[in-house]
Amino acid sequence: MEKSLADALIIMGKAIGAGLAMGIGAIGPGIGEGNIGAHAMDAMARQPEMVGTITTRMLIADAVAESTGIYSLLIAFLILLTL
Amino acid sequence: MEKSLADALIIMGKAIGAGLAMGIGAIGPGIGEGNIGAHAMDAMARQPEMVGTITTRMLIADAVAESTGIYSLLIAFLILLTL
Amino acid sequence: MEKSLADALIIMGKAIGAGLAMGIGAIGPGIGEGNIGAHAMDAMARQPEMVGTITTRMLIADAVAESTGIYSLLIAFLILLTL
Amino acid sequence: MEKSLADALIIMGKAIGAGLAMGIGAIGPGIGEGNIGAHAMDAMARQPEMVGTITTRMLIADAVAESTGIYSLLIAFLILLTL
Amino acid sequence: MEKSLADALIIMGKAIGAGLAMGIGAIGPGIGEGNIGAHAMDAMARQPEMVGTITTRMLIADAVAESTGIYSLLIAFLILLTL
Amino acid sequence: MEKSLADALIIMGKAIGAGLAMGIGAIGPGIGEGNIGAHAMDAMARQPEMVGTITTRMLIADAVAESTGIYSLLIAFLILLTL
Amino acid sequence: MEKSLADALIIMGKAIGAGLAMGIGAIGPGIGEGNIGAHAMDAMARQPEMVGTITTRMLIADAVAESTGIYSLLIAFLILLTL
Amino acid sequence: MEKSLADALIIMGKAIGAGLAMGIGAIGPGIGEGNIGAHAMDAMARQPEMVGTITTRMLIADAVAESTGIYSLLIAFLILLTL
Amino acid sequence: MEKSLADALIIMGKAIGAGLAMGIGAIGPGIGEGNIGAHAMDAMARQPEMVGTITTRMLIADAVAESTGIYSLLIAFLILLTL
Amino acid sequence: MEKSLADALIIMGKAIGAGLAMGIGAIGPGIGEGNIGAHAMDAMARQPEMVGTITTRMLIADAVAESTGIYSLLIAFLILLTL
Amino acid sequence: MEKSLADALIIMGKAIGAGLAMGIGAIGPGIGEGNIGAHAMDAMARQPEMVGTITTRMLIADAVAESTGIYSLLIAFLILLTL
Amino acid sequence: MEKSLADALIIMGKAIGAGLAMGIGAIGPGIGEGNIGAHAMDAMARQPEMVGTITTRMLIADAVAESTGIYSLLIAFLILLTL
Amino acid sequence: MEKSLADALIIMGKAIGAGLAMGIGAIGPGIGEGNIGAHAMDAMARQPEMVGTITTRMLIADAVAESTGIYSLLIAFLILLTL
Amino acid sequence: MEKSLADALIIMGKAIGAGLAMGIGAIGPGIGEGNIGAHAMDAMARQPEMVGTITTRMLIADAVAESTGIYSLLIAFLILLTL
Repeated sequence: MEKSLADALIIMGKAIGAGLAMGIGAIGPGIGEGNIGAHAMDAMARQPEMVGTITTRMLIADAVAESTGIYSLLIAFLILLTL
Repeated sequence: MEKSLADALIIMGKAIGAGLAMGIGAIGPGIGEGNIGAHAMDAMARQPEMVGTITTRMLIADAVAESTGIYSLLIAFLILLTL
Repeated sequence: MEKSLADALIIMGKAIGAGLAMGIGAIGPGIGEGNIGAHAMDAMARQPEMVGTITTRMLIADAVAESTGIYSLLIAFLILLTL
Repeated sequence: MEKSLADALIIMGKAIGAGLAMGIGAIGPGIGEGNIGAHAMDAMARQPEMVGTITTRMLIADAVAESTGIYSLLIAFLILLTL
Repeated sequence: MEKSLADALIIMGKAIGAGLAMGIGAIGPGIGEGNIGAHAMDAMARQPEMVGTITTRMLIADAVAESTGIYSLLIAFLILLTL
Repeated sequence: MEKSLADALIIMGKAIGAGLAMGIGAIGPGIGEGNIGAHAMDAMARQPEMVGTITTRMLIADAVAESTGIYSLLIAFLILLTL
Repeated sequence: MEKSLADALIIMGKAIGAGLAMGIGAIGPGIGEGNIGAHAMDAMARQPEMVGTITTRMLIADAVAESTGIYSLLIAFLILLTL
Repeated sequence: MEKSLADALIIMGKAIGAGLAMGIGAIGPGIGEGNIGAHAMDAMARQPEMVGTITTRMLIADAVAESTGIYSLLIAFLILLTL
Repeated sequence: MEKSLADALIIMGKAIGAGLAMGIGAIGPGIGEGNIGAHAMDAMARQPEMVGTITTRMLIADAVAESTGIYSLLIAFLILLTL
Repeated sequence: MEKSLADALIIMGKAIGAGLAMGIGAIGPGIGEGNIGAHAMDAMARQPEMVGTITTRMLIADAVAESTGIYSLLIAFLILLTL
Repeated sequence: MEKSLADALIIMGKAIGAGLAMGIGAIGPGIGEGNIGAHAMDAMARQPEMVGTITTRMLIADAVAESTGIYSLLIAFLILLTL
Repeated sequence: MEKSLADALIIMGKAIGAGLAMGIGAIGPGIGEGNIGAHAMDAMARQPEMVGTITTRMLIADAVAESTGIYSLLIAFLILLTL
Repeated sequence: MEKSLADALIIMGKAIGAGLAMGIGAIGPGIGEGNIGAHAMDAMARQPEMVGTITTRMLIADAVAESTGIYSLLIAFLILLTL
Repeated sequence: MEKSLADALIIMGKAIGAGLAMGIGAIGPGIGEGNIGAHAMDAMARQPEMVGTITTRMLIADAVAESTGIYSLLIAFLILLTL
């Protein structure tokens, strides 16, 4: 591997930047979706006949909460692949 | 790759800046939307006949909470692509 | 790209400054609006006939909580574009 | 861009200082106003006939909680524009 | 801009010092006033005939909680303008 | 091992970047899935006849919460293997 | 401005020291006074005829909680003006 | 041991990277599985006849929550052994 | 101002040391006294005829909780004035 | 001890890496198992006749929660002994 | 002031060390004594005839909780005056 | 003491590594065992006739929670004595 | 004061080490003893005739919780006086 | 004191390492034992006739929770005296 110091710094910066973006960015959606799922479990136990309705609403709510996780993934890809 | 040290520092700074912007910026909306979704699940279990109403209001509330996440995405794009 | 070390430091500082401003600045409004939305869901389930009233008040409360997020966006733009 | 190292350090310091001032300064008001709004939602559901009164009081309370956010904006402007 | 390195360090130090003073200094009053306002909302819903009394007391309590925020603003001004 | 300093910095940056991505990225899903699972246990104890339904819904909710953990794994692989 | 490097370091140290003293020092009193005020709101709603008594006691309690905030202001002044 | 400085930096980076990956990565699953197990204990005490069912479901939930811990182990192995 | 680098470092160290001592040292007493005051408000609302007794006891409890704040002030003075 | 600087850096990196891996890695399982054990105590007090069943299930749950602690131990051994 | 660099570093180290010792050391006793005082307020409101007994016990409990604060003061004095 | 700089760095690294391993590693088991013990006290007060059973189960649960603390001790010994 | 740079570094290290040991070491016992004392206040209000018994048990519990604070004091003395 | 730079670094490293080990290591046991003691106070108030039994069990539980604190003391001694 014949690389210069500048190339090394670029790869170093990209690895740490993408790592922080995806790593920290996974905290929020992970906890948020866990919270949604936990309350959906409670809701199903309270209204057994609404299992289907709650499952689909839970997935809608998860889809929105997932969005910032996907943004983080997008930024991490951009940092790693196109910078 | 024939890059100078200055170019390396620029890419390094952009990667870390965008990574922090999107990574930390995903915490708030992720947790907030998870909180909205979790309480919506409870509300549906308490008022089964209001599932449609609550789902649309949940999405309205999510849209507002999502806004700072989108601002973060915007700033991360600006840092990566136009600086 | 023929840039000097000084230019590199400027871009580095602007990227990190704007990233911190928007990233950290998204935590407060994100969590706050999530809290408002979550309690609005509860309120709707308790007073189904007030759905319209609560939705508009929720949006008013969200608008105020959003303000510091918008200030952060403004400062991030100022740092990135006019400094 | 023909800038010296000293100019670069000045811009770097101003960007990071203003970013910290506004970023961290948005946490308190964001969470505080979210708390006010959330309890206002509860109060409206408990006393439906007081919606107007509570909305105006909520905005008064928000105005006070917003003040430190505006101070942060002011300091960030001072750092960026007049230093 | 013909500035020396010493001037650059001074501006850098003042920007970061004032940014920390006001940024961190906004957390306490923001959360505290949010707490006061939130409980005032509850109190109004519990004692509707006391809305006026509670509003003025809320503002008195806010004024005291605001004081450390104003001290922070004062120190930030001192750092930026007179040092 | 005949490696240059640049190669050493590259490996160092990749190890730390991937370590942060996966390490921090495991916090959110781990806590979130634990929350989902814990509430599923409660739900089963409250509605014993719904054990099958709740188990499958728990796994659906877990699958969504797992997603940001898998994104972190993906970014860590990308950092380690293809950068 | 004809200042030496030593003068620059002095101003830098004083700005950061005073900023930390007042910024961090505003967290405790801000949250504490918010807590006192919030419970005073509750107390007023529970004992409407005691509004005057509780207001004066709230101010006494606030005065004590404010003391460490004033000490911080004092130390910040000492650092900025007499060091 | 005849090692160059570059080799030393590589080993240093790998040790710290793998240490962070596995160390931080053990927080989430550890707390999550503890949460699942704790609620499973409660569930068993509430529904003694469901001990077998709850034990197997607890293990299913644990298996999912364990996954990010195993990803962390995998990344740590990759960093240590194949980089 | 004709000061040497050593003098600058001394002033820098004293400013940061005193700032940390008083800033961080204000967190504990501020929150603690807020907690005492908040519960005193509750106690007064529960036992209106004990307002005088509780006020004096609150001040005794505050005096003890204040002590570490005063120690911090003392150490900050010692650092600033006699070192 | 005739060691070169490179050897010193290797030992330094291995000590800190292994220390972080095991130190931070002990937080999650320690708190998680404490949570499991605490709820098991409650469960036993509620269902005295199930002491044996709950003890064995507690140990099963502990075994799973322990796993990430053992992974941390494994990585720390790998860092210390085979790197 | 004719001081050498070594003297400057000594004063710097002593100021920061003593500042950390007393500053951080004031958090625990401050919060702890606040907790004791707050519950003493509650206890007095519940058992008005025990005001004297509870006040003396509160002071005994405070004296023990104060001890680590006094140790911190002692260490800070030792660092500042006798090192 | 005739030691080289390399030896100094080795001892420095070992001291800090072992200190972090044992220091941070004591947080989890300490809090976890405290949690187990606290709930065991409650359990004994609720089921006085089960004191012996609960004490032995408490010690079993403590033994498992202690394990990661012992791993930390082991790693700290390895770092200090055999590296 | 005719001291060398090495002596300055030794004093610096000892001041910061002892400061961290005692400062951080005061958090745990301070909060723990505050917790013990607070619950002892509650216990006295619930069982007035047990004031003596609870006071002595509170002091026994405090003595154990104090132990790690005294260890910290011991280590801080060792660092300052005998190293 | 005729000491070399290497000796200074060794003492510095040992002071900071031992300080961190004992300082951070005192947090867990301090909070844990405080939790045990607090619940023991509650238990005594609920079952006055079990004071002796609960006191001895509290001390057994404390002894286990103390263990990691003693390990920290041991490692701190090893770092200070035998390294």
